[in-house]
Amino acid sequence: MASNRKVTAGPRLDAFRVGKGFRLKDIDAAARPFASSSREADDAKLVQIGIEIDRLQDVLYANASTGQHKLLVVLQGMDTSGKDGTARAVFQRCSPLGVRVAAFKAPSEEERARDFLWRVHAVVPRAGEIAIFNRSHYEDVLVPVVEGWIDGRTQRDRFARIVEFERLLADTGTTVLKCMLHISKDEQKRRLQARLDDPAKRWKFQLGDLAVRAKWKDYQAAYQALLVATSTRHAPWYVVPADSKTQRNLMVATLVRDALAAMKLAAPKPDYDPKAVSIV
Amino acid sequence: MASNRKVTAGPRLDAFRVGKGFRLKDIDAAARPFASSSREADDAKLVQIGIEIDRLQDVLYANASTGQHKLLVVLQGMDTSGKDGTARAVFQRCSPLGVRVAAFKAPSEEERARDFLWRVHAVVPRAGEIAIFNRSHYEDVLVPVVEGWIDGRTQRDRFARIVEFERLLADTGTTVLKCMLHISKDEQKRRLQARLDDPAKRWKFQLGDLAVRAKWKDYQAAYQALLVATSTRHAPWYVVPADSKTQRNLMVATLVRDALAAMKLAAPKPDYDPKAVSIV
Repeated sequence: MASNRKVTAGPRLDAFRVGKGFRLKDIDAAARPFASSSREADDAKLVQIGIEIDRLQDVLYANASTGQHKLLVVLQGMDTSGKDGTARAVFQRCSPLGVRVAAFKAPSEEERARDFLWRVHAVVPRAGEIAIFNRSHYEDVLVPVVEGWIDGRTQRDRFARIVEFERLLADTGTTVLKCMLHISKDEQKRRLQARLDDPAKRWKFQLGDLAVRAKWKDYQAAYQALLVATSTRHAPWYVVPADSKTQRNLMVATLVRDALAAMKLAAPKPDYDPKAVSIV
Repeated sequence: MASNRKVTAGPRLDAFRVGKGFRLKDIDAAARPFASSSREADDAKLVQIGIEIDRLQDVLYANASTGQHKLLVVLQGMDTSGKDGTARAVFQRCSPLGVRVAAFKAPSEEERARDFLWRVHAVVPRAGEIAIFNRSHYEDVLVPVVEGWIDGRTQRDRFARIVEFERLLADTGTTVLKCMLHISKDEQKRRLQARLDDPAKRWKFQLGDLAVRAKWKDYQAAYQALLVATSTRHAPWYVVPADSKTQRNLMVATLVRDALAAMKLAAPKPDYDPKAVSIV
């Protein structure tokens, strides 16, 4: 059972948790904190953690109607940082029953007519569920900041509203885990080129991606600001070195596994005596 | 690419498709239409089809913004018939990005205050998506019929509204695939007992399950009526022998694979010249 599960030892994740004095540029996107003797061993490790996540998710799902626990995994990062790939790799062993992805694109007219957290609140995880945000409300303190659509005052107001919103979620049973997938500008170039070169992947490439890439430094600065302003005890940010896909997957999987294990859930007890039931 | 994919030969699925003169009692729940030489070979076959489904789903997802194709898989069946297990097994290789499960329980007060298709319409698949209905609007022509809450006239009206609703979905790009997982009363007894005996599975058992089981014949009659009334060209029903989990999974996986392949999708063409793009 989950409550008796021993958490596998791994590298200290605290080093990647955003706290006081954090500087994004101190994190090496090419770091390999989970590297073992071989790629094969790393892959096997990921499968092993995936199986653990599946078991823990089953128990979380079993508690859907009797408990209030749920998990929100926020995935943010520059284009090609691997948000899609991480969602696939980390939850590869899970049943689709209790895992849901919410993808956020540019807001629609209906969405823009409400506050920026309205569409986000509508899709938070329910009890027993894991929700993965592929992009999130953090887009609202990235693009508008870089493009100059909002001023510093509005940016800080949004940070405050986000911290409060996430406290609401945390106070009502949601574990909020936020991962910034951190790639280098060189690695992005390689990945964009790979998308261009592969007809099966070409649909993922848009010319607009290059305009965003051209403002790389501005985006890094916007990330630095939001990471420091919104990494809280109730909803911490982790910066995940993501130039290596395997390393990225291992780190996010470990964070998810640990978040689920920390819930210390067990299968719910029946409200009847199983021995007294006779099936005819 | 999907459009060039050869559909693997298999047993004739038409025999399990509900058409004129169909009688549920003619279908043997213990049938093994996909049985090969060994259990191992069957398992390997399921993995193979799962990989095909994953590839086809990737292409469907790639077409999300340029096309209108989507897939709705309806899973219905008596308790323990394997709706959860089927969803897990058939989509085990898929990314959670383009696969979503919608589970339908007894309607809430908000839902009962609208027509019975309101909550269903709200969660139909979007372009590029596969939605799996774990139970569905067909519950509204099962429980109320067996319990006598609605009369024959209302039952027939609901059949008509369902056929029209599904035609709306089909006309606007949705492939509607409906699977009734068909188990025998004896097999249900074994599975309910197994849930009772296993502390990890006990949460799935509710005393109310026995009250439903006691009306087995009435439920079979309600299924017979809905299957014949609502199996259409645009939204056919398949009755899936489900006493064997492997056989059940193989049949549903084959239906899903074939439904995706029939869309004949390819990766969308870019609206720019890939050779003219330079990444700096």
